[in-house]
Amino acid sequence: MAKPNKQIHFNAFFMASPSQSWGGLWAHPEANGLAYNELEFWTDLAMQAERGLLDCVFLADSLGLPDTYKGKPDALIRSATMFPSADPMMLISAMAAVTKGLCFGITSNTTYEPPYLLARRFSTLDHLTRGRLAWNVVTGVIPATARAMGMDPVPHDKRYDLADEYMDLVYKLWEESWEEDAVLRNKQQRIFADPAKIHAIHHHSEHFRCDGVHLVEPSPQRTPLIFTAGSSGRGQDFSGRHSECTFMSTNNLAHAKRTAAGFREAAVRAGRTAQSVKVFAAATVMVAPSEAEARDLVRDIQGYSDQEGNLAIFSAMAGIDLGQIGPDEPIEVINSQAIQSIAAAMKAGNGGRPVTPRDLARFADVGGREAFIVGSPSQVADTLTLWSEEADIDGFNLLRTVEPRGLGAFVDLVVPELQDRGVYKTEYASGTMRKKLFPEGGDRLPNEHYGAAFRHRDTGE
Amino acid sequence: MAKPNKQIHFNAFFMASPSQSWGGLWAHPEANGLAYNELEFWTDLAMQAERGLLDCVFLADSLGLPDTYKGKPDALIRSATMFPSADPMMLISAMAAVTKGLCFGITSNTTYEPPYLLARRFSTLDHLTRGRLAWNVVTGVIPATARAMGMDPVPHDKRYDLADEYMDLVYKLWEESWEEDAVLRNKQQRIFADPAKIHAIHHHSEHFRCDGVHLVEPSPQRTPLIFTAGSSGRGQDFSGRHSECTFMSTNNLAHAKRTAAGFREAAVRAGRTAQSVKVFAAATVMVAPSEAEARDLVRDIQGYSDQEGNLAIFSAMAGIDLGQIGPDEPIEVINSQAIQSIAAAMKAGNGGRPVTPRDLARFADVGGREAFIVGSPSQVADTLTLWSEEADIDGFNLLRTVEPRGLGAFVDLVVPELQDRGVYKTEYASGTMRKKLFPEGGDRLPNEHYGAAFRHRDTGE
Repeated sequence: MAKPNKQIHFNAFFMASPSQSWGGLWAHPEANGLAYNELEFWTDLAMQAERGLLDCVFLADSLGLPDTYKGKPDALIRSATMFPSADPMMLISAMAAVTKGLCFGITSNTTYEPPYLLARRFSTLDHLTRGRLAWNVVTGVIPATARAMGMDPVPHDKRYDLADEYMDLVYKLWEESWEEDAVLRNKQQRIFADPAKIHAIHHHSEHFRCDGVHLVEPSPQRTPLIFTAGSSGRGQDFSGRHSECTFMSTNNLAHAKRTAAGFREAAVRAGRTAQSVKVFAAATVMVAPSEAEARDLVRDIQGYSDQEGNLAIFSAMAGIDLGQIGPDEPIEVINSQAIQSIAAAMKAGNGGRPVTPRDLARFADVGGREAFIVGSPSQVADTLTLWSEEADIDGFNLLRTVEPRGLGAFVDLVVPELQDRGVYKTEYASGTMRKKLFPEGGDRLPNEHYGAAFRHRDTGE
Repeated sequence: MAKPNKQIHFNAFFMASPSQSWGGLWAHPEANGLAYNELEFWTDLAMQAERGLLDCVFLADSLGLPDTYKGKPDALIRSATMFPSADPMMLISAMAAVTKGLCFGITSNTTYEPPYLLARRFSTLDHLTRGRLAWNVVTGVIPATARAMGMDPVPHDKRYDLADEYMDLVYKLWEESWEEDAVLRNKQQRIFADPAKIHAIHHHSEHFRCDGVHLVEPSPQRTPLIFTAGSSGRGQDFSGRHSECTFMSTNNLAHAKRTAAGFREAAVRAGRTAQSVKVFAAATVMVAPSEAEARDLVRDIQGYSDQEGNLAIFSAMAGIDLGQIGPDEPIEVINSQAIQSIAAAMKAGNGGRPVTPRDLARFADVGGREAFIVGSPSQVADTLTLWSEEADIDGFNLLRTVEPRGLGAFVDLVVPELQDRGVYKTEYASGTMRKKLFPEGGDRLPNEHYGAAFRHRDTGE
C-alpha cells in the first residue's frame, strides 16, 4: 500500500514531414501537417507538449526515400508519408527556447553521419537545452539512402558492427576528451580551461579513425540519453549495451511483454540492471469525452489514411514489397521472416483472421503495428495502465494523428485522468533528461553503463 | 543628385565560442562571452541585431583545434579563442523564432560535411527562416581537423577542386531534383506532390557520388545565398563562379579596393556582372559619444586581449608558427608567402615600421587584419562611408569585441548616424535574404549564376 504507483511516461512522436506513421492524414481538413516546415508548427507543438507535462518531443527521421513498394517512391510522394523529410536537429533550439521542462529526442544514424561532427552537434544541443536531450541511435534501414550517400548498401548485422565502433568513438569524445575539472572559466586569472586536462582521443578501429580533441566543453549530460529501437537479436545486443530507453511497436500485449523482457534481459547480460532501461511502446490514442465520440473520431480519420502510403511505409520497414500480392491476400504467403513475424504478432488482434495488406494499411481496423487505444479518458487510462503493469512498459510514444487536435485531446482528457490515478507527474522534475527519467541516478551515464568505462582516467601518476 | 546614396550593409560576425577574432575578451568584467553555450545569448544577440536592422548574424566556424602555434593548442584553450567551438547550425532556429527581418549566415565546409546531408540541413533552415539564410562556403583550413575526421590533410588547391564538385552536387539537389510545379499540397485531391516532377539526381564525379531525390521540397531560396571568403587565385576563381557575397579582412583601404575589384573581376570572368557580388570587409568598430571616450574604450579592452591567443589564431590562419620568432622581431624574416603578404598589407597602417608578432597580437595598435575604426558616431560613419565609396565595399562584418555592449553601441550610436546620412535602411525590406540584398532580383539564384544552369529542364518532350 505504501509503494507509490508506477509512473507512466509519454513522448510526442513526430517527424518533420506532413504525415508519418499514418500516411495521408495531412489532408484532413483540421490537420496542420502541411505546416511541418514552419517554425510555429514546432514551437506550438513544444508548448502543447509542455502544457501536458509530456516527457519529450521525440523526432523520428527517415533519411531517404524508400522505393520498396512496387519499386517506386510514388505512393510516399503522393501521400506525403514520411516525405518530404526535413532535418530534425534543426528544430531543437527553437523548441527549447519556448520550454523549460520538456525534453527532446533526435533520431540520427551511425551509418551516414560522420561521428566527429555528430558528437559536436549533440554536445551543442545538450548545452543549449541544458541537458534536455536524447539521441535515438539508428543504423539507417533504407537502401535508397546508401545510393544517395554514394555508398553500397550495408547489410543489417554489419550496420550494427559499424554502430558499435561508432559508439566507442563518440563515447571517447563525450566522456574522455575533457577531464571533469578541465574547465575553469576564471575571469580573474583569465584562464578558460587547463590544456593539461583536455586530451585528444585516439580511435583507430576497422571503419573509423579519429585523433582529436572534442570541440565542445562537457555538456550537462556529456553523452545524451541513449534511445534505441532495435528488436532483432543483434539489435537487442546493441540495446543491452547502449540503451537507456528503448521503444517498440506492437499491438499485442503479450508480444509487448516479451519484447520488454527481452530489452531488460539484454541490459542484464551487459552487466546492468533490468530497471536501467525504460521501455516505451508506440501507441495511437483516440480519446473523446465518451467512447462513442472516440469511435466517431476514428471513423472521421479513417477515410483520410492513405492505404498506398501506409503499405509503402510497411514495405520499407520490412524490406519487402507488399505490392507484390493483392490487397486481400494473406501476407503469410510472402516468404519473409519479417512479414511472418508481423503476421504472427497481428493475428491475435485480428480475431484470428489472416492479416492482409488491406488490414495493414487501414487506420484502426487491426491497429497496424502499434497499440491502438480508443475510448473515453477512463477507458484509455485503463488500457495504458494495463500495458504499463502487465507488459512492464514504462511509457508510450504517442503517434501523431490529426494534429494539433490529437495531442491536444490527450493533454486535455487523458493527462488529468492519469494524474487523478497517481500514475502521472503533476510537474516536471528538475534537471537533465537522464535525471528526470532516472531520479535515483545523476546527470551523467551511470557507472555500470558501457559508455562510462571510457571516462578519462589518470594514467600519468 | 537624383541618384540615391549607396547603402551600407552590416553583419554581426559571431562564433559559438567565448571569444573569437580577438582572443581573451571573454575575461572582461562586462563581457558575456562565457554564456556562448546558452540559448539566451543567441536570442538576445538576434534581437539586438534586429533592433539595429542589421542584415545578418553571420556565424563563423572553426571546425578543429589548431596546434600551429608552438606546436600545441594550449594558447587557444587557455584564452578560449575560437575554442570551444560549438556547431553554428544548431543556433539558427531559436534566433529565427525571435526575429522577422534579420538573416543568418552559417559557415559550413565542403571537405568534411557529406553533401547530401548538408543540402538537407540548409533546405530545412531555409524553410524555417522563410528564406533568411546564407551559406558561407569554406573548405576547412585546419590540419588538425583532417586528423580528427580520420582523413589525410587535403592540400589547398585540391580542397577547391573538391569544393567545385561538391557545389555541382548540391546545386543539383537544390535546383534540379524538384520541378517548380512538383508540389501541389492539394487537400481536396489528397495529393501532396506529383511523383513525375520529382527526380533523383545523378552525380558521379571524381570524389562524390549521389543518386537520389532531395529530401526537402523547394525552400524559398532553394540554394541559400552563397558567401565565400577565398582570396587566393584559386579561391577567387571559386568565388567568381559561386559567390553572391564575399568577405575579406584587411586594415588597408587600397588593399581592400584591390581585393574588392578582384572579387568583381572574378565574377565577370564567370559570366556575371560586377555588381552581382556584394563585398563585405571585416571591421572592429569602437564607438562612443566622443572620440576621447572611444579611445578610452579601446584602452579598457586592450588589457584583456590575449596576445598568445591572438598569435595562435594568426598562426593557424597563415599556416605558419609565429611562435618561432621573438615577439619584437619583424615577421618578414619568416619564409612564408602568407606572412609576407600580411606584413606588406599591414606595414602601411603601422607607419612604415616592420610588423612584429606583438603588433599582430595587440588589440587596436596596428589593428590586426581588419579595419579598426575608433571614434565618435560621426567619425565612424565617415570611415565606413569612405571604405564604402573609395574601396567599393558593400558592407561590413562587424567583429565581436566586449559584448553585448560592443554591438549595442553600434546599434545605438552608429546606426542613427548612418540613417541620417541616408546610407542605411530604416526598415527591413521584405522577402528572402537574396531579395533583400539584391532587390532588383528574385528569391532564387539569378539566371547568369553558375548554379542556375542546374535547374531541371524538360528533356522528355
